[in-house]
Amino acid sequence: MRILFLGDIVGRAGREAVMVQLPAWRSALKLDAVVVNGENASHGFGLSTAIATDLFKAGVDVITLGNHAWDRKELLREIDAEPRIVRPINFPPGTPGQGSFVIALPNGRKILVINVMGRLFMDALDDPFRSVTECLSRHRLGMTAHAIIVDMHAETSSEKMALGHYLDGRVSLVIGTHTHVPTADHRVLPKGTAYQTDAGMCGDYDSVIGMGKDASVARFVRKIPGERLQPAEGDATVCGLFVEIDDATGLARRVEAVRQGGHLAPAFPCL
Amino acid sequence: MRILFLGDIVGRAGREAVMVQLPAWRSALKLDAVVVNGENASHGFGLSTAIATDLFKAGVDVITLGNHAWDRKELLREIDAEPRIVRPINFPPGTPGQGSFVIALPNGRKILVINVMGRLFMDALDDPFRSVTECLSRHRLGMTAHAIIVDMHAETSSEKMALGHYLDGRVSLVIGTHTHVPTADHRVLPKGTAYQTDAGMCGDYDSVIGMGKDASVARFVRKIPGERLQPAEGDATVCGLFVEIDDATGLARRVEAVRQGGHLAPAFPCL
Amino acid sequence: MRILFLGDIVGRAGREAVMVQLPAWRSALKLDAVVVNGENASHGFGLSTAIATDLFKAGVDVITLGNHAWDRKELLREIDAEPRIVRPINFPPGTPGQGSFVIALPNGRKILVINVMGRLFMDALDDPFRSVTECLSRHRLGMTAHAIIVDMHAETSSEKMALGHYLDGRVSLVIGTHTHVPTADHRVLPKGTAYQTDAGMCGDYDSVIGMGKDASVARFVRKIPGERLQPAEGDATVCGLFVEIDDATGLARRVEAVRQGGHLAPAFPCL
Amino acid sequence: MRILFLGDIVGRAGREAVMVQLPAWRSALKLDAVVVNGENASHGFGLSTAIATDLFKAGVDVITLGNHAWDRKELLREIDAEPRIVRPINFPPGTPGQGSFVIALPNGRKILVINVMGRLFMDALDDPFRSVTECLSRHRLGMTAHAIIVDMHAETSSEKMALGHYLDGRVSLVIGTHTHVPTADHRVLPKGTAYQTDAGMCGDYDSVIGMGKDASVARFVRKIPGERLQPAEGDATVCGLFVEIDDATGLARRVEAVRQGGHLAPAFPCL
Ligand SMILES: [Fe+2]
Ligand SMILES: [Fe+2]
Ligand SMILES: [Fe+2]
Ligand SMILES: [Fe+2]
Ligand SMILES: [Fe+2]
Ligand SMILES: [Fe+2]
Ligand SMILES: [Fe+2]
Ligand SMILES: [Fe+2]
Repeated sequence: MRILFLGDIVGRAGREAVMVQLPAWRSALKLDAVVVNGENASHGFGLSTAIATDLFKAGVDVITLGNHAWDRKELLREIDAEPRIVRPINFPPGTPGQGSFVIALPNGRKILVINVMGRLFMDALDDPFRSVTECLSRHRLGMTAHAIIVDMHAETSSEKMALGHYLDGRVSLVIGTHTHVPTADHRVLPKGTAYQTDAGMCGDYDSVIGMGKDASVARFVRKIPGERLQPAEGDATVCGLFVEIDDATGLARRVEAVRQGGHLAPAFPCL
Repeated sequence: MRILFLGDIVGRAGREAVMVQLPAWRSALKLDAVVVNGENASHGFGLSTAIATDLFKAGVDVITLGNHAWDRKELLREIDAEPRIVRPINFPPGTPGQGSFVIALPNGRKILVINVMGRLFMDALDDPFRSVTECLSRHRLGMTAHAIIVDMHAETSSEKMALGHYLDGRVSLVIGTHTHVPTADHRVLPKGTAYQTDAGMCGDYDSVIGMGKDASVARFVRKIPGERLQPAEGDATVCGLFVEIDDATGLARRVEAVRQGGHLAPAFPCL
Repeated sequence: MRILFLGDIVGRAGREAVMVQLPAWRSALKLDAVVVNGENASHGFGLSTAIATDLFKAGVDVITLGNHAWDRKELLREIDAEPRIVRPINFPPGTPGQGSFVIALPNGRKILVINVMGRLFMDALDDPFRSVTECLSRHRLGMTAHAIIVDMHAETSSEKMALGHYLDGRVSLVIGTHTHVPTADHRVLPKGTAYQTDAGMCGDYDSVIGMGKDASVARFVRKIPGERLQPAEGDATVCGLFVEIDDATGLARRVEAVRQGGHLAPAFPCL
Repeated sequence: MRILFLGDIVGRAGREAVMVQLPAWRSALKLDAVVVNGENASHGFGLSTAIATDLFKAGVDVITLGNHAWDRKELLREIDAEPRIVRPINFPPGTPGQGSFVIALPNGRKILVINVMGRLFMDALDDPFRSVTECLSRHRLGMTAHAIIVDMHAETSSEKMALGHYLDGRVSLVIGTHTHVPTADHRVLPKGTAYQTDAGMCGDYDSVIGMGKDASVARFVRKIPGERLQPAEGDATVCGLFVEIDDATGLARRVEAVRQGGHLAPAFPCL
């Protein structure tokens, strides 16, 4: 199975770059599924269902979220009607939406996608390690789920790596999001799980994590509220990871960085 | 001018990999100077002067530090005798050691190296933006300092990127450290400063940021003090950045990732 | 029912002051039970079972803990043999010890004591609101539990007050610990639960939260590791709260501050 | 000299209670000066100059602020025209307003009021210890300043106590604010500085630190954005501290808690 994961889509620049590239990539890379993190898709803060619809039309199968999940409050009301939008699984019981979704491919194969948030330097949610374990107890990699993708939305490299090793051999991919910077540590862990500390954002990197650089710098230098942060609108880089998964085991055979457009050095899987 | 910067050296595995590679790289890459972050060189915690001496012998010119600067308390007494070991410049007045060092090359050229720490999710030190600005007021890029390297030891991508843009055009390189994961966003910013959010560590990546993975995972899963963290001792990756600097302006002409050995995808500048 | 709760006992000064006062107070105040927080009883860090034994002999019925629970690692092995030492209930499953204890009085009445930790600016444990709710589902105030005491060990006043209101009418007392400073806001909330944001420590207040003031101040002023913090050894104040509970309902009828000795203004219930 | 300090005024309930009491107290307690913290006076968030004017008319001499200083952004433009509104002194250079103000009494005596913010679990401002020291270097207690009041707006008891001891003998009063809960540890430190960890808020205590309790509890229990927090509008308690200062030395002779109205146990200085 061949899967593409794209990191946090930031604002219009990020969205449009993703929507331009995706159709061509779906066929060139013979993708079975595309998962993107959309927590910053709507002007940098949250996700509207209108934008979600555009992303689905462009070839996205599942959209994951993170700490910005509810920046557009209307999603709290609308998420239950759109199970392909997945919010962190370790929100407390009673939170609208679901923390996982199963993609059913035309060939009968199934891909489980889980979104989970770290807690170090973030809000105090339920234990991400236990929440994912509990979800996995209802699935069996290579049997009931032919691939399992875990989007670990977290601040620190340590918590992400710890989850990667914790799940090694039990899922197909642990992919970090939230820092908005792609890491160069994509690899297959010893027991077969693909891993990357952060997928990077899809957005304009001539910015501070996707937002206008002058206003962002001002926030660090002066300690007064400044103008509202706006997404940077320049050339965007589409950032993510391509994983090839063994159909028999659900484990990763190959993992390669994807970076196209904008200001970063390009990377693309060998076809 | 050609400079190599290597990220946080972690324990024996990291040290030995650096010392094995460095002599060959100094000549192959025609390096004018080598700067490494050494805050984790001594068994993962701090830096002993004995290890610093080994690193200098192997071809390192300056060693920077970070939040682990004083894990080996003896360095507090010894740092004033070794100005090539540079601690964060934004420690309060009266802190032993210096926050910058000027490398004087045989050809008369000078390279200013500054170490500074971020504050977001870290200890509350002096303002990193102001501390660096104040230091830069005593130097002029391309005139009194032919290259200026800033090691921004910080947790968040946002604070690092903000410093990068803030210093763009005023220094040769802003290079992040501390997360122990190399980022794939090395580039030259619009006004000529080379930038990378994190250089990555020099250490064994089959680990949690360089420390043994079982003990590290246990700390997240169980909330009880476990065994002391020990550096992972497997194959290390040497991670860093190569920068070519314009002799006339002190700005960056070329920046390329360096990753050799261990478990990550290799990268090396075209010779 | 008449209950005395004493806040974090810090080191020898705190312990001795408590052990000197307690026998007299047990009879003068006709106490049915005494609960103390002991997380700092052993030289400021943790609790040894030897010291726990001394406290039980002096008239303590239950000892609660907090973030320093495991500073003396041997308690991890010993706590299961001493159920009167109660650790935070929202540690993850599998943690040694229990998060609650039921005191059985000679007259057949029962007092449930729960220890729970806040999460704001503290370690990311399980949800304190849900953990306490889950424990309360097995008890009924005024029926199976004639009094219920909740020690909320937390940093912020907001999280403590929120738990107080959340439990108002369902428990006899929500008493905060951890800041080591007594608050003057003890009162009975609208639905009958006694509340105080912090009981204050039992220790020497000529200190920084119980530890030697020079070394403590140095940590804030200089950003280098200094001498190990030692408990202050001067005159200690015993700090806590006296609650009178309605036997029929389990709700609070009267709540009064207790402060004796040392440097603070004294307070003691009318007899 | 006789000074009254009142803690964070929260919303209409807090403001009105202060304005009702203050005229009577000014004469009953023969007050030379009244200082209040006003960071939450305008509907819980920030301070408008209209409300500041009301407070000054009611007998307030100086209003201090804190982390909510700029919640009403117009104060950024207006504060330079009203030096009696004092913002934290350790904001970076270039911040509008001043961090201290000197009250000139009709009898020629002068009272220096300083506002400073802690950094532990708060924003990373300049060093509060150094900022206050620098300000004090321009004044001499008992000579050029006949009293010196320091409002330490901080989260943790440890940072506040550390500043208290650090300034002991150099100022008349170190009074904490920000937690919105009065502490019962007011006293005169060994070298003559009056101290209290927190003055408590002036507001309705049937709340979560002054804000409506249901919405506040919901934020802890559910992890979704809820309704905007509104100040509680019930009976308010006016909370603060009365200090009598020796005219010859500027040190404290007597310090007593003030708590009137609302749901807390009352306290008032002996006249
Ligand atoms: Fe994001
Ligand atoms: Fe995020
Ligand atoms: Fe490091
Ligand atoms: Fe570090
Ligand atoms: Fe404690
Ligand atoms: Fe504690
Ligand atoms: Fe406040
Ligand atoms: Fe505040």
